[in-house]
Amino acid sequence: MPTLRRWATTILAVAAATTCMSVRAEELLTIQSQGSFTVGGTVITMPGSFDPTQGSAAGQTFHGDHAYVFYQIPVKAHPLPIVMWHGAGQFSKSWETTADGREGLQALFLRRNYSVYLVDQPRRGNAGRSTIPTTITPTPNEQTLFNIFRIGEWPSYFPDVRFARDPNTLDQFFRSLTPNTGPFDVEVTATAISALFDKIGPGILVTHSQSSEPGWRTAIKNSNVRAIVAFEPGGSFPFPEGELPPVMPSSDGPFAATPIPMAEFAELTKRPIIIYYGDNIPETPVEAPGRDRWRVRLAMARLWRDAINHHGGDVTLVHLPEIGIRGNTHFPFSDTNNSEIAGLMAIFLHQKRLD
Amino acid sequence: MPTLRRWATTILAVAAATTCMSVRAEELLTIQSQGSFTVGGTVITMPGSFDPTQGSAAGQTFHGDHAYVFYQIPVKAHPLPIVMWHGAGQFSKSWETTADGREGLQALFLRRNYSVYLVDQPRRGNAGRSTIPTTITPTPNEQTLFNIFRIGEWPSYFPDVRFARDPNTLDQFFRSLTPNTGPFDVEVTATAISALFDKIGPGILVTHSQSSEPGWRTAIKNSNVRAIVAFEPGGSFPFPEGELPPVMPSSDGPFAATPIPMAEFAELTKRPIIIYYGDNIPETPVEAPGRDRWRVRLAMARLWRDAINHHGGDVTLVHLPEIGIRGNTHFPFSDTNNSEIAGLMAIFLHQKRLD
Repeated sequence: MPTLRRWATTILAVAAATTCMSVRAEELLTIQSQGSFTVGGTVITMPGSFDPTQGSAAGQTFHGDHAYVFYQIPVKAHPLPIVMWHGAGQFSKSWETTADGREGLQALFLRRNYSVYLVDQPRRGNAGRSTIPTTITPTPNEQTLFNIFRIGEWPSYFPDVRFARDPNTLDQFFRSLTPNTGPFDVEVTATAISALFDKIGPGILVTHSQSSEPGWRTAIKNSNVRAIVAFEPGGSFPFPEGELPPVMPSSDGPFAATPIPMAEFAELTKRPIIIYYGDNIPETPVEAPGRDRWRVRLAMARLWRDAINHHGGDVTLVHLPEIGIRGNTHFPFSDTNNSEIAGLMAIFLHQKRLD
Repeated sequence: MPTLRRWATTILAVAAATTCMSVRAEELLTIQSQGSFTVGGTVITMPGSFDPTQGSAAGQTFHGDHAYVFYQIPVKAHPLPIVMWHGAGQFSKSWETTADGREGLQALFLRRNYSVYLVDQPRRGNAGRSTIPTTITPTPNEQTLFNIFRIGEWPSYFPDVRFARDPNTLDQFFRSLTPNTGPFDVEVTATAISALFDKIGPGILVTHSQSSEPGWRTAIKNSNVRAIVAFEPGGSFPFPEGELPPVMPSSDGPFAATPIPMAEFAELTKRPIIIYYGDNIPETPVEAPGRDRWRVRLAMARLWRDAINHHGGDVTLVHLPEIGIRGNTHFPFSDTNNSEIAGLMAIFLHQKRLD
């Protein structure tokens, strides 16, 4: 029965396709593999010989200053994974569930078939084992952070802010903070994340706020960083020695660029970079330090874009209100419109042939 | 063509079943949902009123002492999720990838269709925001830990130990440590994990070493803890007031039980509990504190099992060598035979109708 057999074969093929699609439905994540590891770091070795009956440190070791990484690789993953690196006071949770309980960038990009690596930088979160001692003091500062993170001017929310206003969301948001367990160090953190790119090969680096600065440093160190998506860079921007812009005063304090050798700067012209800033950033000085700090950072980011592009690079700066997307906080990737933000980012990756 | 139609329908059904099975193959994890949240904790509120132009803490808040939780719910999940709670110096990584790069209990039980909740207890790992200040000092102590964790007697491995001997495994193992960011507190941690069981409803609690003690406490507080699987309990065991066993001396120091009211003790008789201890625990005193500390804990665990069962409870104590499983360290769930250990645990859950 050749005709019958052909027809049955067609049925089988259609059934296979549709059935699998229903399994790989919108709400399911199909993970090829997942896991965690640490990468980078150093070892302290004490002189002397170890005596197991004594409590002494003699002859003993201490492994620290590594990064901790949790990864998930979806089925049919794009070739380039995405490494997501939190900002100051934050940890890998930045990219997981949002404070109001929706999916963060981790799940949104797994659904777009990207492998996702979430980082806790050395001396933060699950990478808490620091080679430098530190004292952690619980300092009530959440109202200051509410302002710095541009949710509003405490206790008021910005009228258009993309942040849910129920008390539970704010509770979860404040609890997504975790302290440094050692001094924040650009070189230590960049070295660990560079070791991650040595391990996993070429990929896309996503930074947020404080991690912008060690993020640029990581790209200078490691050509496996094939693109950078920088959400609201907060750290100092590197400019070529002799081409430094003037220090920018603000009501939050001065903001200065960092001079680096031209050979290092040139590394930053070799891959596409996109920068996103959200809303409610003033264009002229205001006596609200939480917002004014972003005025000078956005202004410096524009100069940095121009400097990189002048030297042959490829930086795009997207100030979201300028393209009609209003109300984003310092955390566009977890704001209530984060699926729209993820969509913008996916278009960028596609345009740069990174998908 | 009724016959043909019936035949085609059969093909469709078979295709659907086999195709889905191939998608849900051994190596794929199909996740209904995943995410993270914090639970429990307290808020410090400073007197005064907040002035955004000052750096002062006046009028500001501090959220801390919560637990951090990462969960994954597989398709067709069993009704009772499993909550996995790390031991001293550890964090949620205990249950993720093993030091030698294999799947930990998280993935092994997702594959058995259990929902899995991984915890970082208050003041540890990603739940670092402590309401109590602390100083963290990098103390070289890894050779002591090698002995306490019963991998061997440094620098020798136990001949039969279920731990890979390559240097990279030991490096990853030591880096799976992270410090306390505030004082360890049985009540603070038990309160947070009890709040987790309030949120997720009935479930199974898995503890390791230090978390045994707040784990018993959580079960006393919350009837949603329907069973406890305790790997190598390391904390003090609670006995009824007036029924306290004598303090047990060891070369690691004395080990004492904790008296609690009979009404609290009675709560522990109301759900099945299983305790696993690994190998290389001496039965008579030795001058090796790393191993001797487990001699008294195993001995106390046997008395505790008898006390609970005498009062009508259901505790099973499995000393793995006694059932022919040799070489396990203090971390049976991540040892090289961890899939066998997971199998044992799954049989227990099935026997107790918890699956």
